[in-house]
Amino acid sequence: MKNQYQDTIIALATPAGSGAIGVIRLSGNDAIAKVNGFFQSRYRPKDLTRVKSHTIHLGYIKDGDKILDEVLVSIFKNPHSYTGEDVVEISVHGSPYIQQQVLQLFLKNGVRHAQPGEFTLRAFLNAKMDLLQAEAVADLIASNSETSHQLALQQMRGGFSSEIKKLRDELIHFASLIELELDFAEEDVEFADRSQFKDLIQRIKTTLKHLVDSFAVGNVLKEGVPVAIVGEPNVGKSTLLNALLNEERAIVSSIAGTTRDVIEDELIWDGIRFRFIDTAGIREATDEIEKIGIKKTYEKIKEAKVVIFLIDACALSQTASCHQPEHDEVLKQFEKELRDIAQKYPSKKILIVVNKVDQIDRKDYQIDTRTYPLIEISAKHKTGLESLKSELTSLVNKGLLDQNEVVVSNARHYKALNEALQSILQVEQGLQSNLSTDLLTIDIRAALHSLGEITGEITTDDLLDNIFRNFCIGK
Amino acid sequence: MKNQYQDTIIALATPAGSGAIGVIRLSGNDAIAKVNGFFQSRYRPKDLTRVKSHTIHLGYIKDGDKILDEVLVSIFKNPHSYTGEDVVEISVHGSPYIQQQVLQLFLKNGVRHAQPGEFTLRAFLNAKMDLLQAEAVADLIASNSETSHQLALQQMRGGFSSEIKKLRDELIHFASLIELELDFAEEDVEFADRSQFKDLIQRIKTTLKHLVDSFAVGNVLKEGVPVAIVGEPNVGKSTLLNALLNEERAIVSSIAGTTRDVIEDELIWDGIRFRFIDTAGIREATDEIEKIGIKKTYEKIKEAKVVIFLIDACALSQTASCHQPEHDEVLKQFEKELRDIAQKYPSKKILIVVNKVDQIDRKDYQIDTRTYPLIEISAKHKTGLESLKSELTSLVNKGLLDQNEVVVSNARHYKALNEALQSILQVEQGLQSNLSTDLLTIDIRAALHSLGEITGEITTDDLLDNIFRNFCIGK
Repeated sequence: MKNQYQDTIIALATPAGSGAIGVIRLSGNDAIAKVNGFFQSRYRPKDLTRVKSHTIHLGYIKDGDKILDEVLVSIFKNPHSYTGEDVVEISVHGSPYIQQQVLQLFLKNGVRHAQPGEFTLRAFLNAKMDLLQAEAVADLIASNSETSHQLALQQMRGGFSSEIKKLRDELIHFASLIELELDFAEEDVEFADRSQFKDLIQRIKTTLKHLVDSFAVGNVLKEGVPVAIVGEPNVGKSTLLNALLNEERAIVSSIAGTTRDVIEDELIWDGIRFRFIDTAGIREATDEIEKIGIKKTYEKIKEAKVVIFLIDACALSQTASCHQPEHDEVLKQFEKELRDIAQKYPSKKILIVVNKVDQIDRKDYQIDTRTYPLIEISAKHKTGLESLKSELTSLVNKGLLDQNEVVVSNARHYKALNEALQSILQVEQGLQSNLSTDLLTIDIRAALHSLGEITGEITTDDLLDNIFRNFCIGK
Repeated sequence: MKNQYQDTIIALATPAGSGAIGVIRLSGNDAIAKVNGFFQSRYRPKDLTRVKSHTIHLGYIKDGDKILDEVLVSIFKNPHSYTGEDVVEISVHGSPYIQQQVLQLFLKNGVRHAQPGEFTLRAFLNAKMDLLQAEAVADLIASNSETSHQLALQQMRGGFSSEIKKLRDELIHFASLIELELDFAEEDVEFADRSQFKDLIQRIKTTLKHLVDSFAVGNVLKEGVPVAIVGEPNVGKSTLLNALLNEERAIVSSIAGTTRDVIEDELIWDGIRFRFIDTAGIREATDEIEKIGIKKTYEKIKEAKVVIFLIDACALSQTASCHQPEHDEVLKQFEKELRDIAQKYPSKKILIVVNKVDQIDRKDYQIDTRTYPLIEISAKHKTGLESLKSELTSLVNKGLLDQNEVVVSNARHYKALNEALQSILQVEQGLQSNLSTDLLTIDIRAALHSLGEITGEITTDDLLDNIFRNFCIGK
């Protein structure tokens, strides 16, 4: 596998566009010699192939007599580099034109343009990081909230790899003993202590279950906590959402470079990403079309981790000055919806938000406020929004997050962990039912395979392609 | 002036956005100590304030216990850095979120966000480069063609600064001698040898004139060579322009990152930028509105360095199968326009382009083809375009460019050089007319001032503000 990665690759490592500087990165056996061939030191002549690792050199990149740019060249010597190979970073002036000129110079002279993720792929192939850590690099670059950032950093620094690796090594030990038994099948010996083996299988099962379960949390933290807002059309849903979004947007846009393409209904509070899902109400269906709408609402609520029930203060308060006769129907409907959702989805976090509190004079709410948190706001006047935010973040922190917990946030890991768990459950069952050793080894091998795939001890070209093609070029 | 720049500044030096890496740059007395306070080495503990200059260090940037990112830190020690101060470059993972986290950490801890161009301003104030070189840095980043790139590089490496500086120093020498004469005015002595002084004034005048004249060329190279296309509405002007643009656009877009906002009528060939200017024709005016149109056409032609006269082959060829009676009028008009322009603007390069050559069977052109280059094309069938391009580039190369020549391409320099030249002419005149010494010194001082402004030996805050506020932040 390693042989194909002996050539020297190059790519722009910084974002495309104009800036003060741009960094062009080379990696491979010839990286330093290639750069040295086009480098001229600013002061006394210098041979880059003879300088120390982790040193920086000022000079010119020249194409023949023509100076392309004045640059800083950073030298990283094998194995003390990102890829584990010789690496050179050329810091050029941040003009796209110059960057292209320098790139083209090397491309014309036997250096290949890197594939997406190829630098990190090489780091993996040269055992500078395991597959989990390599994947974390991509997650880290894509991270856009406190939690996704911390998840990626945790994973990059080892995460659950070491635990999986340790358990897998123990399993390999038993597997080899059991396979040995097969060679002595006629003599009916047991090299592998069955009770110790059962104990190991238990430990692996517990760990895997724990990690598999953590995916629900990890995925939410990475992708955002889905929050469904349920309420009558005129209760102020969009006013609320706009009030929240506008406030946040002002904050976001004051920090240059933090906004990506604006996604209308996503917000980050206290480092937690929330995704707001707008829903129609859940009124009694009177016709077919309405039934479809209600079905969709239920589907959206099913996705959500948190459901906000938004109600008009006037509808909730019988004696309020703004209370209208039709509000009785609204309240009835509201209570029905609350009951329905609570019954249908007992695990959802529910939050009651009372809008237009500025219009009532007495808080004589016709609803039991002990079951669910109740927040009073005026979306129009932007009051109570802070309470809503802190209630939402505390719901998530209490229910989902444990800062010291290792969580799985990558769908590939989840799949492999699940497969490993299934195989381990098979092994467990096999041990309980005294399955023949040769059948047992099939399940053990399957478990070893799945575990190995997680950390990259077992890889296929397809697997690597899949992982690295989603990287940006230059990483 | 220097005192206000003792604090430590920070900015993102790479373009905003996601990439493999981003570089955050700090400069100032505290730069290394500040970074050291939040840095933890990946391997053995390390004190960044004690490491050598031009070395790179792997570790973490930590906010308390929380790791913000795994980074590479490059140390540049005063005065061996871009700014001449202590400089640290932190290479972080290329997520806008992480970049903001790291920036915010330092901003919260006594580091100030850099103003646009402040790093380069400090480099200038610390005498790492003169003002011409500092300005060249911005030009270099904005360079988008071979010629603008080479102009900026030439200027960054010294350009005409050294010549101006040398002449100015000689002028200062004479100025001080002449001012000394004023102190001994009653004794009527001459410390400054008048013939040597006249000789110096001649040399300064020649140099300044040469540089002032080069601006026409420098500006053209930087901003693009303006090419006016004159021709009948149906002669195929827009077909030609589209044929040229489309072809070029395909080339441009195959090199990632080289295109800026597409400007419809700009093309780069052989590293030379061309700006195409569309014009109406120059027919006999019959009414007021037409007169205005013709006036505008003349104005546009005045801007142009090259004028392309585009004519239909059928109009040019009396015996061609496609020749129509009305073509006689077209040809008459064409010849009149050609004469008019050649007379009115004798310095313009003129090119005759015959379109629709595929429609004629014999090249019996009714025009003297010896005076101007004549190119045959078919814009529709895209033939002859290469000849047109090479004729255009060779016209420019012959007429405008001399690769070894120093040219002025910056409007500020042009203005200052012009002012210096005017003062020097005054001095020359004063010397010829035996102007009194005290009046002579006024003009000498004015010349010294203008010359000093070019290289930055004389600066005002306004001047510096003007120059550096157009820089990007981080440079």
